[in-house]
Amino acid sequence: MTSSQSPQPAQYRPGSEPARQKLDPHIDRYAARTAGMTASEIRALFAVASRPEVVSLAGGMPNLAALPLDSLSEQMSELVARDGLVALQYGSAQGVPALREQICEVMAMEGITAHPDDIVVTVGSQMGLDMVTRLFCDPGDVVIAEGPSYVGALGSFAAYQAQVVHVAMDDDGLVPEALREALAQAKQEGKRVKLLYTIPNFHNPAGVTLSVERRAEIVEICAEHDVLILEDNPYGLLGFDGQTYPSLRSMAPDNVVYLGSFSKTFASGLRVGWVLAPHAVREKLVLAAESATLCPPTLNQLVVSKYLATHDWKGQIKTFRENYRERRDAMLSALEQHLPEGCTWTRPEGGFYVWVTVPEGVDTKAMLPRAVTARVAYASGTGFYADGLGSRQMRLSYCYPTPERIREGVRRLAGVLESEMELMRTFGSVTSRAVSGPQFPGPDTA
Amino acid sequence: MTSSQSPQPAQYRPGSEPARQKLDPHIDRYAARTAGMTASEIRALFAVASRPEVVSLAGGMPNLAALPLDSLSEQMSELVARDGLVALQYGSAQGVPALREQICEVMAMEGITAHPDDIVVTVGSQMGLDMVTRLFCDPGDVVIAEGPSYVGALGSFAAYQAQVVHVAMDDDGLVPEALREALAQAKQEGKRVKLLYTIPNFHNPAGVTLSVERRAEIVEICAEHDVLILEDNPYGLLGFDGQTYPSLRSMAPDNVVYLGSFSKTFASGLRVGWVLAPHAVREKLVLAAESATLCPPTLNQLVVSKYLATHDWKGQIKTFRENYRERRDAMLSALEQHLPEGCTWTRPEGGFYVWVTVPEGVDTKAMLPRAVTARVAYASGTGFYADGLGSRQMRLSYCYPTPERIREGVRRLAGVLESEMELMRTFGSVTSRAVSGPQFPGPDTA
Repeated sequence: MTSSQSPQPAQYRPGSEPARQKLDPHIDRYAARTAGMTASEIRALFAVASRPEVVSLAGGMPNLAALPLDSLSEQMSELVARDGLVALQYGSAQGVPALREQICEVMAMEGITAHPDDIVVTVGSQMGLDMVTRLFCDPGDVVIAEGPSYVGALGSFAAYQAQVVHVAMDDDGLVPEALREALAQAKQEGKRVKLLYTIPNFHNPAGVTLSVERRAEIVEICAEHDVLILEDNPYGLLGFDGQTYPSLRSMAPDNVVYLGSFSKTFASGLRVGWVLAPHAVREKLVLAAESATLCPPTLNQLVVSKYLATHDWKGQIKTFRENYRERRDAMLSALEQHLPEGCTWTRPEGGFYVWVTVPEGVDTKAMLPRAVTARVAYASGTGFYADGLGSRQMRLSYCYPTPERIREGVRRLAGVLESEMELMRTFGSVTSRAVSGPQFPGPDTA
Repeated sequence: MTSSQSPQPAQYRPGSEPARQKLDPHIDRYAARTAGMTASEIRALFAVASRPEVVSLAGGMPNLAALPLDSLSEQMSELVARDGLVALQYGSAQGVPALREQICEVMAMEGITAHPDDIVVTVGSQMGLDMVTRLFCDPGDVVIAEGPSYVGALGSFAAYQAQVVHVAMDDDGLVPEALREALAQAKQEGKRVKLLYTIPNFHNPAGVTLSVERRAEIVEICAEHDVLILEDNPYGLLGFDGQTYPSLRSMAPDNVVYLGSFSKTFASGLRVGWVLAPHAVREKLVLAAESATLCPPTLNQLVVSKYLATHDWKGQIKTFRENYRERRDAMLSALEQHLPEGCTWTRPEGGFYVWVTVPEGVDTKAMLPRAVTARVAYASGTGFYADGLGSRQMRLSYCYPTPERIREGVRRLAGVLESEMELMRTFGSVTSRAVSGPQFPGPDTA
């Protein structure tokens, strides 16, 4: 993105960050791993994008308005009054035992049979990602991930200097043949593949789901190549028709580390997620978690535990599902109605996201400031690749805005795309400079 | 410790862990850094030590009974009912702005002038430790730390493969001359010293406080040697006479990263701590924190913020101080009364811990199972050294048990020590095998 091509809103000053970096007196003190930690120019933009007049299709914030706040409020009050000495005190690094038992019940809905002892409660599943990468990845190790993939996972892999190799998806999710090829190539290059990181259900950001047939095949390929699977499943219970899919963990308990979360099915601000791991791995995970946060917040674990014990949490998930389906419908019909010819997109059966591909020549990262000026925001596709791809893609979220706002946002976005394509027809391709590394902040919180 | 010397309670089976390790099919997959993550034999012991009949002088749990649970309960209820859509939603990685402003007021009590923008809220200050180590330590880098030092910090340093060099303390804290020597030796050995990690106030586990004169000297030595100071200050407001000390941060804002916590002055189970860092470092910290947990729990931050805004939090800290002083007094007088000749200990003016040195020949790690059999637990000194020292020391906590329990615990401990010394007089020194690496679980939660 160069200034001659992108008139920027006055609030957006990408030049200020690099200048400050140069003045950092600690610059020679940082560890090598910090080289991968670079603030994105998008960060400055997000501040503008979060203004109320901008329709943000960029974030991944769940719609909490559907939660029963009054009864939650009562419960929390009771919890502190009655069990405050426990709720406000340190707990074990592995997490509250009663909650770990309840987590087993939650996972049973997706065909998982697990023992509470093999679960480690984490500060959101982001911490699970971080801990698993810490346990398995030496600098230079390869992590295979879908392309595109979750931006927060790319951030964790970068923090441990792992190299991400992307593998293609289609409408049925990760392509097994592409996985085989990536494994063969890594072998040929003498690289050690440590993990296959995958989001099988209602993928973030791609919005697709791995077919049941492919699940078996992928599990088999990984066993054959001695590669551990890291299965990330925050959206599995949010299928719009209520369907769930057999988890990879249920197919290969000894070769899958599974990440779960209450962020999308209950409340993200509590930061309660979990890792289910083979027993020996779980032991190491507890040690890693202990050195990372000592223990997860006790209060938050008890809040979740009480909620699961006393609320109709399955009914609540159904409410969420219906809510998100309505928004998905609003987005898909608006895309159909407004987006210019040459755009394509995925049709998610669950989760939060639609993945849009724009015509050749349009650069979604370069276009973003112009979209924000037109009062609509999205997440540029480049953030979801570790290798600079994604400039023809964008992720649109339908989880947070109302259906009317979604329709208005897509209408505005279509207008921006039209002008962009008009420019292209007049002046040729709208280019931008390459982007490397994940784009922060994580779109899930923006 | 060999079985012939230490009759163990039936519940304690140290042999079971190594056997399980051998069966781990993932053993060849782990990252090199996991070599430093070993479960301690003490872990099994802690389960026994936490039984009600055992007086535990081992843990670092604050005494929350002094908290106003009823009004906290009311507040939390109001918070969720009124601001639930914010409290239960994702927040920024840096933390809630209002809380960061209040944290500045808290730090002002120890002479710190800071801007809220330079604060990063963390999941307890353990996460701060982990993040700072992540930013600064490459494998093999040296961290200088007091000997003994906080076990959780040693765990974080080990997780990033940093080498800890201990520097001696006396009753006035870290000895500047010893610091100079350690720096000179590291230089001579061609090692890169990245951090001086120090707990200046009411040290964990040593119970001593760095004198004001030495503070200036240490700040100067570090500036001279281009070594960043990591100042860990969870206990600074818990001085029994209400005295506070000027923080190192206040003396050298650009060369100190400061860790603070609400775990000891409010509620540990909320896991709310913070890092105050020079501006450029703070930017990187936010990126690191984002990849570690996405954001700290919003609910917990709002609970702390509301508590600070509406409660007499300074009065509450005074209550805690008086409470802990009474327990410190109980412990010191019991030690005076019961401990056999040849034992020495520190006399803390604040905080949670007394550091005891036992006569030559007694091994506190070997003795621990016998102490637990006699229904008293402590933290063996070996856990607080990265280099295997500490077998003649133990940490006794007076924060959690009542004064009566403290007196009873010390009485039992004295009995165990007497028998141990009697054995020594009969059979010679009671030896044990060397211990390396930090001992888990972190004594603060045990």
